[in-house]
Amino acid sequence: MLLLDIGNTNIKIYHDGQIKRYKAVAAYVPQEKFYYINVNPRLEKVLHENSFAVNLAPFFQFTTHYKGMGIDRIAACYSVADGVVVDAGSAVTVDIMQNNVHRGGFILPGIGSYKECFANISSRLQYETESKISLDTLPQNTQDALLYATLKSIVSMIEIHAADQKIYLTGGDGKRLNSFLKHAVYDENLLFKGMQKVIKEMGSAC
Amino acid sequence: MLLLDIGNTNIKIYHDGQIKRYKAVAAYVPQEKFYYINVNPRLEKVLHENSFAVNLAPFFQFTTHYKGMGIDRIAACYSVADGVVVDAGSAVTVDIMQNNVHRGGFILPGIGSYKECFANISSRLQYETESKISLDTLPQNTQDALLYATLKSIVSMIEIHAADQKIYLTGGDGKRLNSFLKHAVYDENLLFKGMQKVIKEMGSAC
Repeated sequence: MLLLDIGNTNIKIYHDGQIKRYKAVAAYVPQEKFYYINVNPRLEKVLHENSFAVNLAPFFQFTTHYKGMGIDRIAACYSVADGVVVDAGSAVTVDIMQNNVHRGGFILPGIGSYKECFANISSRLQYETESKISLDTLPQNTQDALLYATLKSIVSMIEIHAADQKIYLTGGDGKRLNSFLKHAVYDENLLFKGMQKVIKEMGSAC
Repeated sequence: MLLLDIGNTNIKIYHDGQIKRYKAVAAYVPQEKFYYINVNPRLEKVLHENSFAVNLAPFFQFTTHYKGMGIDRIAACYSVADGVVVDAGSAVTVDIMQNNVHRGGFILPGIGSYKECFANISSRLQYETESKISLDTLPQNTQDALLYATLKSIVSMIEIHAADQKIYLTGGDGKRLNSFLKHAVYDENLLFKGMQKVIKEMGSAC
């Protein structure tokens, strides 16, 4: 079974437990039956006209009061009954699930976006995001002051909302954040798990 | 006594308890004796050559292990013996003082910088920063998700480091942050108080 998670930058293709990444252009849309979620307006028409493509968006049975929640966030949350769901990419979305109900969520900049943000404020606010850092020691120079604030603001916002609940991390920076969080698991396939759950529900409804 | 706090964008002039703001250009450097701190490289030469100008930077007796701390941050901390010092402008600097010793600090984006940062990630991540919001209720739409994350990440990072210590807020967004923080005071003149303290020390040392 082919699953596509189509973002603004990348298309992730899941096939037999393997994930491949492509640039988000029409050339990477498969020419055999596939299921997809898509947040990329540029590819909507191509997908709509492709007879192999099954858009999963209408089939998610997702309970929330949140207005305008992206289908990628819904898919990330869909296989989690209870816990905090974090998708850490260019933005970091944080969503709270309780008894299979979405209680709300918020959006922080991603690690790379903080770096760009600081560089836009002043040329003096440059730093390496890959450096090692402790979040338990107060910074004593600009590099550490920026990296500490970047990571600790994201980590703290997740911790505050998790309390003792389990944290589910996915996305490009999920692994990095995992090293700073208790009660957390990193799952590269979280969105695909949500998509598989929908497909299963579609099957059992037939 | 004329005091000038010269930033990258603005010159703030303190005179008899009044503050006036000017664009940071040489035209607003007074033609009578004044004391200043300056972080603006473009104005360094003009100030250095001005015979009315007294640069206060060399006179701060400030104890810290922090390397490369801006003179504006030092001035903000200088009149605070114990507490958390927050200067909330285009960046938000947070510094911890204990027994007149600086223990370290960190730097977050300012409220307006978060807004720009989100807009650069995606055109869908637009929001009004001036809107009212509760930081005790999980957001249920994109506008609230962005504003909540912006304010709560700054507020939480201050609270985590303050514990029960007093918080001293200054800078353009200091008033806004004050409304979300316990044990906090907003003081528009915090940097000028630090400058006045140095001048007093210079006087008593003569």
